[in-house]
Amino acid sequence: MKSEFLGAIAPILNEAGRMMTAYHDPKVYDKGRHADFVTEADLAVQSFLIERLSAAFPSAKFFAEEKKDNELTDALTFIIDPIDGTTNFFRHRACSAISVGVAEGRKPVFGAIYNPYRNELYHAEAGRGAYCGDERLHVSDTPLEQALVGFGTAPYYNDLFEVTGRTLTALLPVCGDIRRTGSACIDLCDVAAGRSDAHFEWLLQPWDYCAGTVIVREAGGRCGCILGGDVSLERGASHLAANPRIYDALQLLLQSVWKEVKEKATL
Amino acid sequence: MKSEFLGAIAPILNEAGRMMTAYHDPKVYDKGRHADFVTEADLAVQSFLIERLSAAFPSAKFFAEEKKDNELTDALTFIIDPIDGTTNFFRHRACSAISVGVAEGRKPVFGAIYNPYRNELYHAEAGRGAYCGDERLHVSDTPLEQALVGFGTAPYYNDLFEVTGRTLTALLPVCGDIRRTGSACIDLCDVAAGRSDAHFEWLLQPWDYCAGTVIVREAGGRCGCILGGDVSLERGASHLAANPRIYDALQLLLQSVWKEVKEKATL
Repeated sequence: MKSEFLGAIAPILNEAGRMMTAYHDPKVYDKGRHADFVTEADLAVQSFLIERLSAAFPSAKFFAEEKKDNELTDALTFIIDPIDGTTNFFRHRACSAISVGVAEGRKPVFGAIYNPYRNELYHAEAGRGAYCGDERLHVSDTPLEQALVGFGTAPYYNDLFEVTGRTLTALLPVCGDIRRTGSACIDLCDVAAGRSDAHFEWLLQPWDYCAGTVIVREAGGRCGCILGGDVSLERGASHLAANPRIYDALQLLLQSVWKEVKEKATL
Repeated sequence: MKSEFLGAIAPILNEAGRMMTAYHDPKVYDKGRHADFVTEADLAVQSFLIERLSAAFPSAKFFAEEKKDNELTDALTFIIDPIDGTTNFFRHRACSAISVGVAEGRKPVFGAIYNPYRNELYHAEAGRGAYCGDERLHVSDTPLEQALVGFGTAPYYNDLFEVTGRTLTALLPVCGDIRRTGSACIDLCDVAAGRSDAHFEWLLQPWDYCAGTVIVREAGGRCGCILGGDVSLERGASHLAANPRIYDALQLLLQSVWKEVKEKATL
């Protein structure tokens, strides 16, 4: 049985993707922090998504990257990144996607990520498996020494550059290799599809990982805060997603780097 | 006027790309070093390229990744990476390309890089400009503080992990952001097309950068050894490619990290 969410959201995402890729040289606005940009396309896609999803789900709330005063309640809430990978988008790197997660009772229950450059729709509903289109997704079983580890640099948060750089220095000798695409939700789809084995970022926001977390978990992977506990949908978190074979070992390695950097900072 | 090289090489690359993408789950062989793999597709594409290019250029020599006893002479020499981004290839990441450079008198004179996933042919002949298909390419003019810097991890060379990690730690606060695609020649095409602003790797081989160096230079960019001097086509080199606005500053930053790591190692 097709999910209620998928049936309603898929055509809206398809149209949003066409809207997004129709912008060839969008106006870019600097949001003030390091490397933090928004384009007119992000704003237009977000408005479109909120308008169309409101029509389909009249009681729904919205929590979205380019929206102020985001607050999560127990209500059905769409958690939206209109263009994840904004820098890739305006640099013409063809590596950005639209991420729509659904929370109920403050828990992620559905996720859809649409990559308009490859016309790929990743989706998952809690308890029903993860898919790209009609194809069932499964995480890899790659061991750490061969693992491809995607990462984000938490580019807006200058105080996380040191721990990010040191994490990479610690990872390179023990994993297979690292990847940095510039889109967390594309990285999470890669983990779910077994094209990589893990992804971490020292600070991500709920719109970056809400949909991706459902997709990774339903593909058999694990997601959580690097520093322990489940990810919150109310505020940002350190985020780790990985195949179950390497999750614990990666989390320990990342935690040890965090501890080392914090100890050094307080000396 | 179309170049003699382009006219002969383009259809061969097209056919090689079809051969490459026809392999869905190629046999993978471990080459013994860290994360160093070759697939049956790399070997088949290389044989095909050598056979077809030999027929078109009977006096040409070949210098190629999956070939033993590579030696560069003054003769017309094809410098080939049959699949750059081998790990991406067998992990289904759709981010790999075929790289064919031409050297004469031990200098790079022509480069062609074919990305079969996007059906894009990047090419340049010394003195005649760089193109993707028929579209002229130009590097960016982005300043360092906004620059997207691609990098490779020199994954086969464990003794370069420390300098690579420390370079990233030093770069993150001063550039816009970093990218790691897993294919050096795709990264060099990105620099040439202005989709990124620089690329570095602490050790690359001539088949990784021969074609890309011609393409970047003809698009208005600079390429050289990080540690100084021009890149050699006879042996591996530390490799930096960048738009002219940031080349010198990036080179200085990378050299200072190198010096710091070397001094620490000898303490």
